[in-house]
Amino acid sequence: VPHPQSRTLADLGEFGLIAVVAERLGSPPPGVAVGAGDDAAVVAAPDGHAVVTTDLLVEGVHFRRDWSSAADVGAKAAAQNLADVAAMGASPTALVVGLVAPPQTETAWILELLDGLLAEASAAGAAVVGGDTVAGPVVMVSVTALGDLGGRPAVLRSGAAIGDSVAVCGRLGHAAAGLAVLSRGFRSPRTLVDAHRRPAPPYDAGPSAAQAGATAMCDVSDGLLADLGHIAEASGVAMVVDAARLTVDEPLVAAAAALGVDPLGWVLSGGEDHALAATFPPGSVPQGWQEIGEVVAGSGVTVPGVETSTPGYRHFAG
Amino acid sequence: VPHPQSRTLADLGEFGLIAVVAERLGSPPPGVAVGAGDDAAVVAAPDGHAVVTTDLLVEGVHFRRDWSSAADVGAKAAAQNLADVAAMGASPTALVVGLVAPPQTETAWILELLDGLLAEASAAGAAVVGGDTVAGPVVMVSVTALGDLGGRPAVLRSGAAIGDSVAVCGRLGHAAAGLAVLSRGFRSPRTLVDAHRRPAPPYDAGPSAAQAGATAMCDVSDGLLADLGHIAEASGVAMVVDAARLTVDEPLVAAAAALGVDPLGWVLSGGEDHALAATFPPGSVPQGWQEIGEVVAGSGVTVPGVETSTPGYRHFAG
Repeated sequence: VPHPQSRTLADLGEFGLIAVVAERLGSPPPGVAVGAGDDAAVVAAPDGHAVVTTDLLVEGVHFRRDWSSAADVGAKAAAQNLADVAAMGASPTALVVGLVAPPQTETAWILELLDGLLAEASAAGAAVVGGDTVAGPVVMVSVTALGDLGGRPAVLRSGAAIGDSVAVCGRLGHAAAGLAVLSRGFRSPRTLVDAHRRPAPPYDAGPSAAQAGATAMCDVSDGLLADLGHIAEASGVAMVVDAARLTVDEPLVAAAAALGVDPLGWVLSGGEDHALAATFPPGSVPQGWQEIGEVVAGSGVTVPGVETSTPGYRHFAG
Repeated sequence: VPHPQSRTLADLGEFGLIAVVAERLGSPPPGVAVGAGDDAAVVAAPDGHAVVTTDLLVEGVHFRRDWSSAADVGAKAAAQNLADVAAMGASPTALVVGLVAPPQTETAWILELLDGLLAEASAAGAAVVGGDTVAGPVVMVSVTALGDLGGRPAVLRSGAAIGDSVAVCGRLGHAAAGLAVLSRGFRSPRTLVDAHRRPAPPYDAGPSAAQAGATAMCDVSDGLLADLGHIAEASGVAMVVDAARLTVDEPLVAAAAALGVDPLGWVLSGGEDHALAATFPPGSVPQGWQEIGEVVAGSGVTVPGVETSTPGYRHFAG
């Protein structure tokens, strides 16, 4: 617990913050030879390889402090990286975290962010092993996640073959629908708003898809069509998606009716749910995955009967 | 080469930037099973462990765009992390990079930053294997570095023993003197200004210190006294530093005379040179290291005959 006079980061100072965070992290778990507190951490990489990925979360771009709690921001920062590890077919092992925050940020807010991050890491089986904190104009969280392939080759985006089944696992369109709801000034349906605040990637589905022989995989961060498009392009193939096989969950239908839009748009183009999308040899789509289409010759992704002009979210757009 | 109409990040867009960066990175080198372009990279960890560390560089806190070139910023962001890996006694293997930049940032500036980062990584033997880019209010670079211990245990801060020699390798005080010179509106001595812009950590000295039996090690990022203090505290010992054995390089003397200060202050308290400081059993300080003191019983770091009240740089200070 920080000293009561340490209400903001400016009061607490860099070394004070490091001490409080170190206390929160506790002893390093098994698989972490050296935890936080030295120049670097040392993490087990049992099969002689380390999966590594990094992602940034920026206030005003990815979240608003009035729409998301600190714990939500921490959980989301962890989840988007842990999902990338799972999308290689790997199990997450460790995270390191860079945090930029204005000096007047309340210490309690930062610690709540850390707790959300720790909880999400723990849910995915990963430990937080290090980090850095610096003052800056807005809150920014940079997370790097490491993972373990368990001796298997990584499942890349480039392995989809003609005739493969296309399948997804996890929620689609919920985060985008939640953001649309919040943008119109509503706070419900609660399940969608929560989905915007905190994704729920199906971490275990990554390694189990790899075990089932997935030929290509990625997480759905830009939107289903955009991310399937990345697999199609990397693999030199095309995909046909059957819209009738896509689940449009009831809260999406309700919110779409209230906002006067087609809920299928969220399912096809909504990003940031961090579901997993993969291709499998015919007949080998594992349990828990929904088969939604087929890999065919050509390029691009088509959804017969549906206009698909909406691209995924683009950064730096003017 | 970006399209001539892609003068800024807003023109180029996120995917345009990724394409240009991918072209710069080229094919993954040996030791990198999967390079940039997928959900994550896969890096060799030959001895079954991965060293991992992360650090942030923020515009206005760590650099100013009118004082440092883009290449300097990239090199500095890489160097501070690569030095942390070396300070564990490890050889750097890979970097992942998170970049936040305002949309109106010139594409050429970003590519120059990347080139500086690639050059420094290459000098340390590491590959850039992935990254993320997001729009934000100022430039921020988050780098995570991985390293390989070559089967040796990591050299922690906590291993210094009474009777050990204290030694340093690399420049001390140059970066702080360069910043002081720039702050007064000067542009010379050039060697000091360059040292502020771009540290020159002695990467190879980390693994070779480990081989020589170093008992504790860290890099000098906060200032020599502050960082020796971290080793002393973690090891439960004290250190006595002999100021007469510290090298005060000629440019420091000249700049100190011009600014009317004592150059020893920069050597003892100047941060961001990323030299290495370590303790060794008596008689085993390796070549290339300067012995500067001794580990004794007690706590803290003393420099007999010198007032040492200046702390290292602190973030979040009000």
